[in-house]
Amino acid sequence: MKACGETVDVYQASLKFHRRLRGKLSIQSKVKLKSKRDLSLAYTPGVAQPCLEIQKNPQRLYDYTIKGNCVAVISDGSAVLGLGNIGAKAALPVMEGKAILFKEFAGIDAFPVCIDSQDPAKLVETIRLISPVFGGINLEDISAPRCFEVETQLQDLGIPVMHDDQHGTSTVVYAALINALKVVKKDMGELKVAISGAGAAGLDIARVLLNIGQTEAILPPVKEVILCDSKGAVHRGRTDLNPYKQAALAYTNNHSNAQTLEEALVDADVFIGVSVANLLNHKHIASMARKAIVFAMANPAPEILPGEAKKGGAAVIATGRSDYPNQVNNVLAFPGLFRGALDSHAMKVTMEMREAASMALAGCVKKPTADRIVPYSLEKGVASVVAKAVVKAVKKFNVPVWG
Amino acid sequence: MKACGETVDVYQASLKFHRRLRGKLSIQSKVKLKSKRDLSLAYTPGVAQPCLEIQKNPQRLYDYTIKGNCVAVISDGSAVLGLGNIGAKAALPVMEGKAILFKEFAGIDAFPVCIDSQDPAKLVETIRLISPVFGGINLEDISAPRCFEVETQLQDLGIPVMHDDQHGTSTVVYAALINALKVVKKDMGELKVAISGAGAAGLDIARVLLNIGQTEAILPPVKEVILCDSKGAVHRGRTDLNPYKQAALAYTNNHSNAQTLEEALVDADVFIGVSVANLLNHKHIASMARKAIVFAMANPAPEILPGEAKKGGAAVIATGRSDYPNQVNNVLAFPGLFRGALDSHAMKVTMEMREAASMALAGCVKKPTADRIVPYSLEKGVASVVAKAVVKAVKKFNVPVWG
Repeated sequence: MKACGETVDVYQASLKFHRRLRGKLSIQSKVKLKSKRDLSLAYTPGVAQPCLEIQKNPQRLYDYTIKGNCVAVISDGSAVLGLGNIGAKAALPVMEGKAILFKEFAGIDAFPVCIDSQDPAKLVETIRLISPVFGGINLEDISAPRCFEVETQLQDLGIPVMHDDQHGTSTVVYAALINALKVVKKDMGELKVAISGAGAAGLDIARVLLNIGQTEAILPPVKEVILCDSKGAVHRGRTDLNPYKQAALAYTNNHSNAQTLEEALVDADVFIGVSVANLLNHKHIASMARKAIVFAMANPAPEILPGEAKKGGAAVIATGRSDYPNQVNNVLAFPGLFRGALDSHAMKVTMEMREAASMALAGCVKKPTADRIVPYSLEKGVASVVAKAVVKAVKKFNVPVWG
Repeated sequence: MKACGETVDVYQASLKFHRRLRGKLSIQSKVKLKSKRDLSLAYTPGVAQPCLEIQKNPQRLYDYTIKGNCVAVISDGSAVLGLGNIGAKAALPVMEGKAILFKEFAGIDAFPVCIDSQDPAKLVETIRLISPVFGGINLEDISAPRCFEVETQLQDLGIPVMHDDQHGTSTVVYAALINALKVVKKDMGELKVAISGAGAAGLDIARVLLNIGQTEAILPPVKEVILCDSKGAVHRGRTDLNPYKQAALAYTNNHSNAQTLEEALVDADVFIGVSVANLLNHKHIASMARKAIVFAMANPAPEILPGEAKKGGAAVIATGRSDYPNQVNNVLAFPGLFRGALDSHAMKVTMEMREAASMALAGCVKKPTADRIVPYSLEKGVASVVAKAVVKAVKKFNVPVWG
């Protein structure tokens, strides 16, 4: 991993930090066990009664156990951060980190589960089998296109199942775009968007921008999205596309029929990068429409550095990094999305709920400017604003709920 | 479930107690996430470094994650308390209860996992696949004989795997017997023992008493064990035995060749009940050897009530209940056993470790009397005494360790 001086320091400090803690989370009892009576209520013989109630009606799990506030953070370690396929074991520090973000920002009891298989069928079965204790499943860092198979097959589980790399990312990107449009005074319905990266994030961002699969959208779809991968634009002439990119052809690159990323960028209003470092220079940005919006979110090094994008004339620039303005960070979305889903008893996370989350998140910035289109990642209160909007959406759009 | 006045009260109170808590455990962050620096150490970008270290050497999981202090409490819900096969969902309150006992008595972060399948092969595979985050596996309330298959197939996992209904129970029973023998002044090597119940607990108690599978035992084997199930004694003439009871014939019922529980009890020094309520009366006890030891541990109602056993001449009586003297409760064993196994980096729990645990547990009662052969269940310090003995045994008997 390439790293500048400061990041080398962060890496070494993080190692020490992790060695000192030996785990970033702990499991605590909410119960004092001092007397026989305590034991007889929390354990035998009293515990038999909630067991019998749950046996009669499994929904009572929400009344008598942690299920209603418990989310699994699940990965197979196949696409971790920018590190790639490092495996289930090596993914654990990231999943623990995610679990404590759930707690910190949304009060959710989240537990890291690293599954030691990269067979989608085994992932799906394992998650199904261990699901009784969980009220929600957050899939994380599972490589595309396997992640799509896993996530779609779990939608009948009766609890919200979200893949953060797809849905969390697209929720924050959409919020950032809503506010960027206020800055450049353009309309969603007139945008031409070039996306670099046709994996988990890129494909879902395309769907969200175009309202694909969304029954009741509030915001209009953008005019055109062109998806690009490492081979160039996803277009009809390609014979190397996986079924998911193939399916995306039904709604992307229809007008332009661009063949390359360069062609896709010509006159584009928005560039969204969820791919690799150092892909673009200022000339690429200059070829875009005036007042271009550039979200260069490859981590840790973006597709184009903000200075270079500015040189090309970009009007609003966002990255995934905390050392530049406008950090697009999933932590702005997933805590509130899950909090809202759990609070509303939603049995899934729908596009309507995610659109509501994006709009609420955008609304957290009162007067968007070029340097502030999203809230600061550590800003308190964001998750609860997002959660409330999600709860409202569940009611408004009749999302299936339990109870 | 039959219940007297007091237990009805406990059941109703427990229901209220569980409804108020909505889960007996919570997951807490050990980390404050207030600044960008906090986030960069606990999450991106710093977290990449421990990930890479673990990728190079999976044993580093113990340095950088919760693994070294994290135990899974796993059930399929097939044999829960005295409730039977109530399923994975309904088992969750019990597994949560067990998890908080781990924390309270041994400081172990334990998480409840209820697996929604009763196919042993699926249980084994699921546990294997989710094992990266766990430093130990506590199997719980899985019915016999399936539990044997699950537990033995997981012994190569590289972390301690224990089935509490077998190994926890036999550890405490053995400790209780060690002290009961001091009270009645008999020797382990001369005992005739009748066991009622040839499931998880009964079969393992028989093995422990006879040192079966134990390479280096300190205490001598008892003279004879006769196992009984609902059809009578396990003897050579039976054609209905499962493979585990069949295998037990190699070392049980060799001298007496008893056909019935009644025959097994004649001249027996010890009765151990891990079966069903109200099986015996005082005449059965009177048929036993003088100074009989009676452990009637069926829950919630024992095989024989202490008063009735005393009428038959029993010298030492123990039950599983907290309202009589001598409560044989697994909470005296599993916290210390796991604490010791984790502290010593043991890769399995051996019979030598369990014998050491039993002897240390027995040693916690300085002067055993008929009314005090085991410590009080909630007694502090027992787990740490047991843990220390386990750590010593790991060294003394060269149990495989990691690191």
